[in-house]
Amino acid sequence: MKKGITPREESYSKWYLDIIEQAELAENSPVRGCMVIKPYGYAIWEKIREELNKRISDSGAENAYFPLFIPKSFLSKEASHVKGFAKECAIVTHHRLKETEDGQGVEVDPESKLEEELIIRPTSETIMYDTFSRWITSWRDLPLKINQWANIVRWEKRTRPFLRTAEFLWQEGHTVHITHEEAEKEVLDRLNMYVEFAREFLAMETYYGRKSESEKFAGAVDTYGVEAMMQDGKALQFGTSHDLGQNFAKVFNIQFTDQNGELQHPWQTSWGVSTRMIGALVMSHSDDKGLVLPPTVAPIKVVLVPIFKDSNKDKVLTYTKDVYKQLEAEIGALKLDDRDFVSPGFKFNEWEKKGVPVRIEIGERDIENGGVVVVRRDTLEKKEIKFGDLKETVIKILEEMQKDLYEKSKQVLVSKTYRVEDYEEFKKVFSGEGGFARAGWCGDEKCEEGIKYDTKATTRCLTKDGEGVKGKCIYCGKESKDEWIFAKAY
Amino acid sequence: MKKGITPREESYSKWYLDIIEQAELAENSPVRGCMVIKPYGYAIWEKIREELNKRISDSGAENAYFPLFIPKSFLSKEASHVKGFAKECAIVTHHRLKETEDGQGVEVDPESKLEEELIIRPTSETIMYDTFSRWITSWRDLPLKINQWANIVRWEKRTRPFLRTAEFLWQEGHTVHITHEEAEKEVLDRLNMYVEFAREFLAMETYYGRKSESEKFAGAVDTYGVEAMMQDGKALQFGTSHDLGQNFAKVFNIQFTDQNGELQHPWQTSWGVSTRMIGALVMSHSDDKGLVLPPTVAPIKVVLVPIFKDSNKDKVLTYTKDVYKQLEAEIGALKLDDRDFVSPGFKFNEWEKKGVPVRIEIGERDIENGGVVVVRRDTLEKKEIKFGDLKETVIKILEEMQKDLYEKSKQVLVSKTYRVEDYEEFKKVFSGEGGFARAGWCGDEKCEEGIKYDTKATTRCLTKDGEGVKGKCIYCGKESKDEWIFAKAY
Repeated sequence: MKKGITPREESYSKWYLDIIEQAELAENSPVRGCMVIKPYGYAIWEKIREELNKRISDSGAENAYFPLFIPKSFLSKEASHVKGFAKECAIVTHHRLKETEDGQGVEVDPESKLEEELIIRPTSETIMYDTFSRWITSWRDLPLKINQWANIVRWEKRTRPFLRTAEFLWQEGHTVHITHEEAEKEVLDRLNMYVEFAREFLAMETYYGRKSESEKFAGAVDTYGVEAMMQDGKALQFGTSHDLGQNFAKVFNIQFTDQNGELQHPWQTSWGVSTRMIGALVMSHSDDKGLVLPPTVAPIKVVLVPIFKDSNKDKVLTYTKDVYKQLEAEIGALKLDDRDFVSPGFKFNEWEKKGVPVRIEIGERDIENGGVVVVRRDTLEKKEIKFGDLKETVIKILEEMQKDLYEKSKQVLVSKTYRVEDYEEFKKVFSGEGGFARAGWCGDEKCEEGIKYDTKATTRCLTKDGEGVKGKCIYCGKESKDEWIFAKAY
Repeated sequence: MKKGITPREESYSKWYLDIIEQAELAENSPVRGCMVIKPYGYAIWEKIREELNKRISDSGAENAYFPLFIPKSFLSKEASHVKGFAKECAIVTHHRLKETEDGQGVEVDPESKLEEELIIRPTSETIMYDTFSRWITSWRDLPLKINQWANIVRWEKRTRPFLRTAEFLWQEGHTVHITHEEAEKEVLDRLNMYVEFAREFLAMETYYGRKSESEKFAGAVDTYGVEAMMQDGKALQFGTSHDLGQNFAKVFNIQFTDQNGELQHPWQTSWGVSTRMIGALVMSHSDDKGLVLPPTVAPIKVVLVPIFKDSNKDKVLTYTKDVYKQLEAEIGALKLDDRDFVSPGFKFNEWEKKGVPVRIEIGERDIENGGVVVVRRDTLEKKEIKFGDLKETVIKILEEMQKDLYEKSKQVLVSKTYRVEDYEEFKKVFSGEGGFARAGWCGDEKCEEGIKYDTKATTRCLTKDGEGVKGKCIYCGKESKDEWIFAKAY
C-alpha cells in the first residue's frame, strides 16, 4: 500500500512532494495554500529555531512579540513598502459571526464591520516601527535589537509545502542604530550569520551578497540575500538581510536626541529566515530513497532496528537495549523501533525515507558475533561493528556524514556554477541540466528583464568576488563593472 | 520623571497596570485589544514555555503546527462549539488591497472577496480534527497526542494586558484515545500537570477540579479547571483540560478500526494554558514596589550593582567582575548593571520593579570588608556576606525564596477560602475583602445564576475534597451533594 518515491530523473517536483509526504514532514490543509506541519517536520523546525535563536541572541537581539494585525493605514506609509506588501494579503474586515436564520450555520454579521480593516502581517516593519518611535528617545536607547518568531501570511497564488505557502513561520530581526555605518555592519553580520548557520548546521554552501534593485525588499535601500542551489540547479533564496536606511524612521517618526542634543532619525535593518529553509534542506541532500538529513538537524540521529521472531524476541530486545544504553548519553536523539507488526524491511525503508542518519540493525547472528550492523543513510554503506567499538564508530560516522554532506553541497554549487561571457552559452546553462551562471551585467534593469524573458533566470546576488570584476554585460554587451550570479529561482 | 507604582490599597487594577508598564512586561499596541509583549515579558514567557514544553513532551505529546485560518463552515459543525466560539472573532473576507484612485492609500479590492470566509483560530479543535480524521484509521494510530504553541484571536470587548487580549499566545494539546477511560485519565493527568507546574515552577497553589455545566468549554462533555487566587481575592482561571467525549469525533468523522475489525469513534481531549499565566504570576507575588518573580521563572536571577565614583570605578568594577565569575557557573542568569549615567538608587529601584530575586550591592566599603551586600526581593532583607560564602548564600536565598513564595501563596489561598453554610455569610465574602467561598450547591443552573446576580461570584470548580460532601445548597437550601468553590473571576 505504501507509495514509492518518484525518482528525480522522472519528475523533480513530484520527487520533492513525495518526500514531504512520505517523510511525514507536512501536508496540505483544507485551507487554501496553508500546510499542516506534521510532528516530524516541526521537530526539524524546532532544531533550526533553537540553534538559530542562540546565534541571534549572541548578536545582542532580544525576542519580543508584536500583534498579528496591521492597521491598513500603516501599510501605506512607506511608499515602496506598500507596493511590495499591500497586494495579496489576508484582510480582516469584520469581528462577529451570527447564526443564520435557518439556524443551520453561521454568517458574517454585517453590523460588525471594522472601522479600519486589519491586515494579517506579511512582515512586521510597520507595526514594530510605530512602537519603536515611542521606545526610542535618546542615543542611549540605541542600538535597539529586537527579534520575533512568528507566523506570517502572504496570499500566494501557487503554493508548495515549505517553499511557498500562504502562512509560514519565520524569524524577523529588526535593529535600530545611531549611524549608517553601524547599521550596514549589522546587515552584513546577520547575512554572515545565516551563511554560517547554513554551512555549519544545515551542511549547505551558499552564495551571498547584494541583490539587484528589482529583487530587493520593498522599502529597503539595499537587500542582501543568501542563495542555495537545489539539486535541479535552481536557486532558493534562503534568507535576506536589509539595509533600510532612514526610510521607515522618517515615515514612522522615529527620532533620537544625539550626544550633542540634536534630534536625528536613526538607521534601521531587518533580516529573516523562514520555514522555507526546510524546503532547501530537503532539496539539498535528499535522494531517490527519501530524505537525507545532516545529523545536526535530525530529530532522530540513530534508529535501532532489532530483527526478531517470537522465539528470540526477548534475547534480541535485551541486546538492543544494551546497545541503546551504550549510545544514549553521547548521542541523545535515539529511537528504538521495537514494533512487532511490521517487518524489519518495512522499518528500514521507513527510516530511510525519514532521513535518519544512522540505522543500527541487530539480529541473532549479530549478537552471536558480538556486534551490530551499522548503515549510514547518505552513502547506504553497511558495516559490521563490534559492540565495544560502537560508540566511537557511530560518533565518527555522524561527524563524517555532516562533513561529507557539506563538502558535497559545496562541490555541487561550485561545479554547477558556470562563468560565461557569451549569451548563447548563458542561455545553454538554463536550457540544459541547470545550474547558476556567473556573468557580467551592466546594471540596467532592461537587460535583467530581457534575460528573464529569454531564460527565466534572474540576478540572484553580487558576491564579494564578483564585485569589481570588469567585463561586458552578457545581455547588451556594454561595459559591466561586476559579475553577478544568475539562476532560475524557486 | 519615572512614575511610581500605585499602591494596591489605592487601586488594585491601577497597581496591576503600573507593574505591567514599569517592569516593562508589555504595552498596548495601536491595534485594538492587542498588546506588544516586550523583551522582559517575553523572556518570562520563554521560561514558562521551555519548562512546560518539557512536561508536555514527557506526557508523550508531539509538537506540530496547524493553519491560523479556520473555514467558516468548520466552526458550525459541532453544535455547542459554534455557540461558544463563532461569536466575537476576526474574520478574513478578502485577500487583496489595491491603490486608491488618488494614489494616496490602499483599499480593499472588492474583486478579491473569498468564496468562504476564514476565521482566525479562536482555538483549533475544528481545523485539527478535520486533519486527524485522515491521520487515524486503525487502533494502532492511537493514542494520538499533538500539542501546538500558537497565537489565538478572540475579539474581546474589554481587554487588559495578559489577562484578556484579542490576540494571545498559548499552548493547546489535543489527544485521541481508544477508550473513554483512557481519555479521562489524560484529562486528569494534564490537569495535574498544570497544577504541579504552577506549584513547582510558578510558586502558586491552586484549586482544581471539574467545572459546572455553564462554565465548561463549548463542545466538551466535561471541563476541568485550575483556579488561582489573586491578591484581591478574585479567581484567575489558569488552565483548562477538557473531556471532549466523542462529540467532535462524530462531526469530523474520526474513526478507527478496533482490534476486532470494527469501526469506532475515538475519544478526545484538549487542554491549554496561555500568556494569561503571566498575569496570574504578576498578581500572585508582586508588591507595592513592583514585580516579584519566583527565581525559577526570573529571566535575571541576580543583578549586580557596583557603586562607584570616577575615582574608584576600576577598583569596584574589577571586584564586581570577580563576584560575577564566582556566581556565573551555578546561577546562570546574572546581570551586571555597570551603567554610569544613572545612580545606584535608580538602579535599585529599577531592578526591584522588575522583580529580580536577588540584588548584590558592591561599594568600596564592601570591598574593604571583603564582602558584598545581598538584598532579597520579596522580603527586602539585607545581609552582608563574605566573598567566600557568596555562592552558597545566594543559592540558598534563591531556594528559600522559591519555597517561601509558594508557602505564602498556599497560605493566602487557604486562609482566604471561607467555608460557609449561610447565604448572608456567603454574600459577605464577596462584598468585603474578597476571597473564595466553599459552599454546597444543588447543581441547578438557576441557583448559579442567582448567586452571580447577587454577588458576581460564579462556581469555579469542584475540588476532590468537595466531592460528596453533602449539605444544603447555599442559594435555594435544597439538598446538595457536593461543596463547590465560588469566586469572582477575572
